Amino acid sequence: MAHSPISLASIRSFFIGGTTAVVSGLPVEYRSMVLNGAPRKVDPNGEHEYGQMYVQEYRLANPRHPHPVLLWHGGGMTGCTWETTPDGRDGWLWRFLEAGYDVLVSDAVERGRSSWARFPEVYQESPVFRTKHEAWTTFRIGPTYDPEPERRIAFPGQQFPIEHFDYFAKQWVPRWPGHETMILAAYTALADHVGPCHIVAHSQGAGFACEIACRRPDVVQSLVCIEPGGMPVPERVKSGGLPPHLVVWGDFIQASGSHWIGYRQQADRYLAAIADYTRIQTLDLPVEGITGNSHLPMMDRNGDEIFDCVLAWMQK
Amino acid sequence: MAHSPISLASIRSFFIGGTTAVVSGLPVEYRSMVLNGAPRKVDPNGEHEYGQMYVQEYRLANPRHPHPVLLWHGGGMTGCTWETTPDGRDGWLWRFLEAGYDVLVSDAVERGRSSWARFPEVYQESPVFRTKHEAWTTFRIGPTYDPEPERRIAFPGQQFPIEHFDYFAKQWVPRWPGHETMILAAYTALADHVGPCHIVAHSQGAGFACEIACRRPDVVQSLVCIEPGGMPVPERVKSGGLPPHLVVWGDFIQASGSHWIGYRQQADRYLAAIADYTRIQTLDLPVEGITGNSHLPMMDRNGDEIFDCVLAWMQK
Repeated sequence: MAHSPISLASIRSFFIGGTTAVVSGLPVEYRSMVLNGAPRKVDPNGEHEYGQMYVQEYRLANPRHPHPVLLWHGGGMTGCTWETTPDGRDGWLWRFLEAGYDVLVSDAVERGRSSWARFPEVYQESPVFRTKHEAWTTFRIGPTYDPEPERRIAFPGQQFPIEHFDYFAKQWVPRWPGHETMILAAYTALADHVGPCHIVAHSQGAGFACEIACRRPDVVQSLVCIEPGGMPVPERVKSGGLPPHLVVWGDFIQASGSHWIGYRQQADRYLAAIADYTRIQTLDLPVEGITGNSHLPMMDRNGDEIFDCVLAWMQK
Repeated sequence: MAHSPISLASIRSFFIGGTTAVVSGLPVEYRSMVLNGAPRKVDPNGEHEYGQMYVQEYRLANPRHPHPVLLWHGGGMTGCTWETTPDGRDGWLWRFLEAGYDVLVSDAVERGRSSWARFPEVYQESPVFRTKHEAWTTFRIGPTYDPEPERRIAFPGQQFPIEHFDYFAKQWVPRWPGHETMILAAYTALADHVGPCHIVAHSQGAGFACEIACRRPDVVQSLVCIEPGGMPVPERVKSGGLPPHLVVWGDFIQASGSHWIGYRQQADRYLAAIADYTRIQTLDLPVEGITGNSHLPMMDRNGDEIFDCVLAWMQK
């Protein structure tokens, strides 16, 4: 898709949150640390930073909206979710800049440029690594996975660019499922640092975003949850002042027979709990006649069409 | 420092290189994968991508030079080396865009957004994590480290913004020192993908860059090695066609008594071996009267001054 240049006032990055762990009692090693290097002493004992979050901040020369958009990725992913799509089109980072918003893209704690800490010495549990088979199912690409691409079966009308599925796998990162308290602490610090903002979040990130909206209702101006996974329990919702929520669902939720049925019920319970306190909208894409979307609408072939729906809601 | 807006034709990212590993025989787990989620089956067995490299590509609306600059970071770091400095100034990414170059910033294989693979099932060895003490010494900040900032002793005239040293620690990432073959494969693929380019590389990345210049002398147009760690052995250098090399050294190499004495000798041997085949320049900053630089000149307070020296050499 043709596009015009964008004039940026700055491209910056920063880290937010985090603390220091002290590691002791580990053996000293001697390892070569550079190409053709002689082994040198490596002492792993001492202070390590962990729990911080990396944020990349694009500020327009002439923003047309007062508040920036924060783009939060889902589980096992990084901020590159929002950059180029697996088949090489502009992602929603570029689209939001084009629409006149400043944009901040973050990598959740422990993922991507946010770094991660040694386990079991600092982190207590072990990480989870995504397999291609798991992703084919969880992302609702299709009913049947096979290592051989030509033997994989996608759902009919699938909008995800499946011929780039193996390439897409290169952007997955490990995660530690038990680190929600640490991750939420960094997201809270980010909201406090940035001030009034819109959050557009995917999957696990959308659950975190709703929790942050409950914690910081004055900061979060609006919230777009793309296929949210994990939502605050209804008891978490007190009252008043919550920002408007848009929830977007793709296709194949019943057909996939996956945990998305439960995640959707969890989202519906949360939305019912906040319905008296703010404006909510659920955009069920197949109900609206937009069919074939996977768990990754921003990467799907019709991602621009869905972006336009999101933008129209944000500007209503 | 005041700066003007920059007009970008595109902000893109891509992954290059990598292959698939198959993991088998590991136990299936049941873990909650989202906020307030019910435990679900997590099967770690199957196909995993590894060995790929993440690249972020900034293309100017009106580049003033024919070939882009590739920015390669050092050991235990990511591409954010080149973004904002620890004390909040524009890094060399912005400076090169300002100077009219398209810029590609990469995270070396296994670091940052390039992701990493499980060990010992895919990677065989264990990673190395940087401690603050190790960094204070290796980066030649000063002779004495202490967990309490006010008790740390920096070298006299130190240019690194030491009051932000603990914040700087948030950008360090683990690395696997034995993965040079895999990392070089991805850098080679990047050079082949991008075509004619300039490489500006730091520390471990500069060693890799010299090896790539030997492998792809027609692709690499010029090479700036900032404090190179690890260089090709002289026997690696065949003859002819190598690109011009600039090597930049900071201060305190003798005073630190660290492995930098050896790394510098290694660099000098490499430069002597290529001297008959190309233009080389060593910019020893203290010899030129620019004193106080750490191992991280691009983050030091006088980073703009050093950038100007690099740019002048590139455009000579």
